[in-house]
Parts: sequence; structure tokens; C-alpha cells
Amino acid sequence: MFREISEFHEWFAERGRANAYEVTRTKLDELDGWHFDDETGNLVHRSGKFFSIEGLEISTDHREVESWTQPIILQPEIGILGILVTKFDGVPHCLMQAKMEPGNINLLQLSPTVQATRSNYTRVHQGSAVPYLEHFVAPRSGKVVFDALQSEQGSWFLHKRNRNMIVETTADVPVLDDFCWLTFDQLGALLREDNLINMDSRTVLSGLPFLAGEDEPTADPGPDAAPEHSFEQLLSWFTEARSRYRLDRRTMPLRQVRGWLREPDRIRHEQRRYFNVVGLDVRASNREVTGWSQPMIAPSDRGVIAFLGRRIHGVFHVLVQARTEAGTSDVVEMSPTVNCIPSNYRDAPADKRPRYLDQVLMAPSSALLLDVVHSEEGGRFYHAENRYLVVEADESFPHQVPDDFTWMTPQQLMGFVRHGNYVNVAARCLLTCMNVGRRAFDGAGRR
Amino acid sequence: MFREISEFHEWFAERGRANAYEVTRTKLDELDGWHFDDETGNLVHRSGKFFSIEGLEISTDHREVESWTQPIILQPEIGILGILVTKFDGVPHCLMQAKMEPGNINLLQLSPTVQATRSNYTRVHQGSAVPYLEHFVAPRSGKVVFDALQSEQGSWFLHKRNRNMIVETTADVPVLDDFCWLTFDQLGALLREDNLINMDSRTVLSGLPFLAGEDEPTADPGPDAAPEHSFEQLLSWFTEARSRYRLDRRTMPLRQVRGWLREPDRIRHEQRRYFNVVGLDVRASNREVTGWSQPMIAPSDRGVIAFLGRRIHGVFHVLVQARTEAGTSDVVEMSPTVNCIPSNYRDAPADKRPRYLDQVLMAPSSALLLDVVHSEEGGRFYHAENRYLVVEADESFPHQVPDDFTWMTPQQLMGFVRHGNYVNVAARCLLTCMNVGRRAFDGAGRR
Repeated sequence: MFREISEFHEWFAERGRANAYEVTRTKLDELDGWHFDDETGNLVHRSGKFFSIEGLEISTDHREVESWTQPIILQPEIGILGILVTKFDGVPHCLMQAKMEPGNINLLQLSPTVQATRSNYTRVHQGSAVPYLEHFVAPRSGKVVFDALQSEQGSWFLHKRNRNMIVETTADVPVLDDFCWLTFDQLGALLREDNLINMDSRTVLSGLPFLAGEDEPTADPGPDAAPEHSFEQLLSWFTEARSRYRLDRRTMPLRQVRGWLREPDRIRHEQRRYFNVVGLDVRASNREVTGWSQPMIAPSDRGVIAFLGRRIHGVFHVLVQARTEAGTSDVVEMSPTVNCIPSNYRDAPADKRPRYLDQVLMAPSSALLLDVVHSEEGGRFYHAENRYLVVEADESFPHQVPDDFTWMTPQQLMGFVRHGNYVNVAARCLLTCMNVGRRAFDGAGRR
Repeated sequence: MFREISEFHEWFAERGRANAYEVTRTKLDELDGWHFDDETGNLVHRSGKFFSIEGLEISTDHREVESWTQPIILQPEIGILGILVTKFDGVPHCLMQAKMEPGNINLLQLSPTVQATRSNYTRVHQGSAVPYLEHFVAPRSGKVVFDALQSEQGSWFLHKRNRNMIVETTADVPVLDDFCWLTFDQLGALLREDNLINMDSRTVLSGLPFLAGEDEPTADPGPDAAPEHSFEQLLSWFTEARSRYRLDRRTMPLRQVRGWLREPDRIRHEQRRYFNVVGLDVRASNREVTGWSQPMIAPSDRGVIAFLGRRIHGVFHVLVQARTEAGTSDVVEMSPTVNCIPSNYRDAPADKRPRYLDQVLMAPSSALLLDVVHSEEGGRFYHAENRYLVVEADESFPHQVPDDFTWMTPQQLMGFVRHGNYVNVAARCLLTCMNVGRRAFDGAGRR
């Protein structure tokens, strides 16, 4: 336990020194264990395991263009992302891990207690290399507080989901090297620092409000918090979006993807937009394996993940988008107001830019309720940074919004997080920054 | 409005007389507008619309056999099934329609106010042939009480979903021929009659409890109803089942399906199990079109859809199964304890029969809390009857159940109905029989 956040930083710096890592870019056809399949051109591992990079053809009536093809990561396996919680003197603490991921811009970030693949946890009874995994697989001694299948980045992954779990235990838990206990307030403070709490942590922490009890946060918002829309209206808005739009996908050989070029050290879009596929060699001293190579997706630039928010009848609401991405498993998910890489649209006329992007980028600094840079999953994405923003619109911002958008309170959105299949990873991560520890937003922290 | 249920029956008999229908079996290659595709052998309509019957290869670790192939209906379109509710003297009434469907054993059954295909409702602004549809598409004057995408029969449909809606209106609604208002109690009584309330009505009526208000029924079961498992435990049980099992599907040409024979008047399984694909000619006087031909799926025999129930700590619980079917869109759904055609297993040894089937079939009549025969969707399924049962197990029935099963109260299961993607059509229909109108089950009718 840390009394001061500075103690955490000392510990974290020490963990960085205790482990030596080296990550170098390498040519795609020199990646150890990986090759381009002769027939399809897909980038695959010789074991057939881990993941592959293939081609995807998308056809939809719910994006800027009607159809396109792109490389995409296929990884059908469902892993466990789990955070163990226990109380010390009545104060709940989360067990977090200082973990190197090669895609992280600073290598070391704070991850959940457990990040386990299916092969990790199905062999658990023969003894697992993943510490603390026994708290997350049956039979468990602790109490499951949150357990949902949650989607990951739909622009880069096809149908990827992980199981997000929070387990509360009263057992005595030994603290291994690289692990530490943090309070919600400490996590809240660290979530305001750039590139420190990793994506896996952020998505799991979106379930932290359910620790308080059995109630659906949406069920009874209380007399002082009157949301603009009822829960039933929000469900109906979402059902309508899922019914109205079409999203057809077909995997295709990577070599047939149009508009993308395979170069020795990357696969890139012909206009150098969106992302590259790059190769990495990794050497690390404190991982299960001491060295490996792998491909990664490297976004072309830093992205923006932003909620526009405003008070309605005195209650803070955020503007949620029903958004379709290439890999979205069920047509639309609830997304932040804006979720894009702005420079992809650098030449686009105003009416082809993502809705509300201009409002977000041009907001005065006084309107930024949250402004922090976080990394996306450093095991698959290389230097993938997003600026996480909550922008307060003034009362003149239109109450009426297009069909694809609706107002909800952060608390209402949190209610949907409990079920998988509703809230996308960007929105969950942004909610975590709003909800955990601090109480910067009306209604957001109400339990 | 009917003061007595006998008045309804007089009206319903009169509707039957007012309309003349004729349904005849016909050869598959003589179905007007339909043909077997030269290349694939798929059974398709010349317009490319409606639906098609294709082949499906299933591979899973969660059924009696690891892999099989079968014919299956593909109909990607999402339709609307909607029931309009209004209050007369404070008493809510549902607007129901006497509707002929060629697959119904008695042709005429009670359907929802609206059964609309996507092409029906997307052309609504040019004037629609579907009466009352304006109450279900935006902008609506009424209040949406229930609006969820719900799955249909996974054994016969691949990923089929319809939008289930209940809308409450205060508008003055003219009652057209073939339509009538029924109270919940009247519906409850009619749900105890065989083959009267059609499947589309039953699935929509599963959302009727949400009419009462904003609360999630699961949120606060009240101090007197202590369920065996908390909502979070149920979510975790379900997430674990979705994570644990594998379900891979691949559509294939119908002609390549193994173990099925194409005969002039049917496609059948080589052992005459499961179902046949048959052809029908329909002549009717009160439909949008006065005559048409179509293929249908005709199950090989009557099925059983049953909950085993028992009191735990004095509260009635049902035994819910996490079940995988060929067309299930996301690995498992919550299903009744038993959901099968018993004669498919006539030669199977006891350990290859569906779990709990014997307990259901051999229950004494005194243990049958519900026993009624209903038809499945008469637009796609021919004489598809299921015996809907709720069987009360005595207190000696094991408290501990296999991993694929869990106890929940009918009220808890109802909470999951509000969200799509959880509760399968059999369980929803069975819940409706338990919940609507009468109060035969503890906890089931609590609002």
C-alpha cells in the first residue's frame, strides 16, 4: 500500500529498472515464427495460434463510405482480464501489475491483476504460469462483482472480445514482485496521467461501480437526477439503430485487399492513412517467454476519443453515438461522441468529417473537463495513443441531435456496461477516466 | 372488448368463417416462384427476397455430437413484431389480430398487432399495407414500453432475429376487422388453450411486465423474495458459458449437406428425424397477396419445451439451461430446462438423451403446473407444435446442477428478456405462459 502517490511512482520506477526490455522494429518477412501464407498472403504464426492478420471486406450503409477493404486482426479466442479487489481497513484496493507490453510507448504500464489467454486458463489445473489466475476461474473463493464479455477495437480487430472480471476476495493475498495494491482514489489520480493505466485496466475498471451492490445503476437514478431519456427510451434508441443499419463482412485473403501496399517493413495504406502493420522483435527479462517476435498494428497518428457533455435540467449528460466499425460484432455499439484519428480527415470537406469533431478540436481549454493521453492495448497495437477528452458544451449546444446520437447520463451508460454487447471499448475507457476515484462529474460517481 | 371469454370465441369463430383459406402440400420443384439453384442446390425465391434454405455445417464442443450438417433457413432481415397497448377505464388492453398463417395446424391464430418485414416498414412513408404500423416506427405518438432484438428458433434459423416491441398509446385507435382488444387476464386464459396465441404474440408478450414502470425487475426483488443466486452471479454464470464453449458455423451449398435426402415432396433426414423441408400452396382471401407458394420446415414430431421448477427457501425457481443450437448467434442462450423433440432420441441410450428429459416426461400429472400445446411461427414452420410444460420437482430434487444449468426465479429471467441476446424464444414463450394474466407462480407476476 502507498500512503502517497509519490511512493507509487518510486515503486513503479524501480520496477522499470528491475527489468530490462528491448523492442526493435524488424522486417515483416524476418519475424521469427511468422510468415505470409503462400496462397492468401495472410500473416500467420507457424503454430496456427496467437492471432493472424487477414483481409476484410466491409459493406455498410452506416459509414462515410459504403464499402472498403482493409487488413484486420483475427483472434477468436476469449481471454480473461481480471482485477482482484480486497478491503484493507474497510477501504477497497485493486491489485495491479507493472507490466511491459512491446507496443507501449513507454513499455511499462499498469495492467490488471490477470491478463490470461484461453490456453493460459484452460490449463490452469496443471499449474499455470499466470499468477492469481485461480481467483478468476471456477471454483473461486471470492465474490464475482463484474463479469462481462466486452468488445475491443472494431477498427483493428474482427469480433474481438475479452472477458472482463472483477473479483472481491477476503482471502490473504500475497503480493508478488511487479504487483501492488491501489485504492480507487489512487487509481483515479493515476488515470489523469498520460500512458500509465493500460487499456486492459481501463476497460475492466469500467465495472468498478458494480462493487457497491446489486443495484443496476440505471434502475433508480434517484429523485435529484432526472435523465433526459428513460432507460426504456435508450434501449429503444439502440434497438432501432441495430435494426436500421446493415453491416456485412467477408474475410478475404490479405493479398487481395485493395488500396494497401506490402513493403518490407510495413503494410500501409496507399495514402498513408489509418494504420500500418509493422514487425517487432522483443527481448524482456520478466515475461513467461524471454523473447519473441510479432506483428502489430501501428495507427497512422494519435486519435481522439471524446464525449461532448452538457447539463440538461441541471444534470450532466454525455452525447453517445451508435457507431459501426469494421469489426463490430453486432452492427452498432455505444461509442463516445467522437472516436477517430483526425488526420485521416485532413483533406476532407466539412460534411465528410466525423460529426462533432470540429466542436471537440476547437473547444476552449476551459471547457475540457478531462484531457489525458492513454495507450491502447500494447500487445497488439504499437504506439497507439488516443487523447481522451470530455468537453463541456455550453447550454446553447443543440438539445436535438441526429438519430445516431442520444443524450444519457454517465450513470445510465454505466448500466449498459454491465451487459456485454452494448458499450464499445473507447466509451468504457472514457467512462473509467470519469468515474474512478474522483468525482469530477455530476451523477457519474453516484452509487 | 369482450366481457366474457366466450364472446371472444364467438368473434374468433366468426373471423374464421369470414375468410376462406386453403393450404395444400405441393412438390418442391413445383413451388411457384421458387427453385433449387443450379450450382448450390439452395432453395431460393426468384426475387432473391423473402428467405432461402441453404446448408449449414456446425462444429461445437457443446452438443451431443461434435459436428453435423443440416438444411437451415437464412433470412437476415429484421422484422417488427409489435403489440399496441391502451387503457380503457384504467385497464390495459392489447390489440391482437386474428391472422391466418399457412403452417398453423388450425390456420387461424392470434397474432400481434403488427408483424412487419423490413420492406414493409421501410416503405411506410409511401403508405403501407400493414395497419397500425405507424405506432411502431418513428416518429411515434405512443410510449415504447419494450423494444428488443430477440432471437428465433436456432435449430431451424441461422441468426434470425426480430424486433419485439410493445407500445402504449393514449390515442384513439380504430379497430379494424380481424382485430380485437384483450386484457392481460383474457390473454392469460387464452394462453392456456392449445394453438391459439401464436409464437409472435408469445414472444412479444414476454415484455409485458415492463409496462409497469422503469424498474429492472431484477434490480430489487424485495425482501420476501430471496433468489438463490444474485443477478451478478447469474451474469457471471452466463458469461462463463459463452466464454467456455466453441460454436463454429459455415454455410454450405444445400446439395452438399450430408445425411439428408432430396425427394420430390420433401427434403428429409436419412433417419426421418429432426425435420423435413416441404412445399405449400396457399390461397387466402384476407392477406396482402391472395395466393402464394413457399417452402416450410416441418418438424418430424411434436417437441417438448419445459421448465423444471422447485421452491428454494420457499421461493419458486426454474432451472435454466445455457444452450447451443445450430443457428444461435452467440454460442449459448438461456433456454428452458428441456427443449427437444423426444422421438429424435427414441433409440438413444440414457446418457445420450437430453438432460432432465426423463424427469419431465415421467412427471406425475399432479406436478404439471402448466401443460399446453402451442404452435411455432406459422409463416415458416409447418405444423410445428410444442408441448409447453412447467414441472414442479419435489424438494428432493438436487440443489446442485451441472455447469450448464442454473436456478433463477421467473422474475430474474424476465429481467434478462429486456435485453436481446440472452433468452431464447422457447424460454420467452414459456415465461409468457407463466407470467401473463394469471398468477400461478410465486414471484412470476410480481411487478
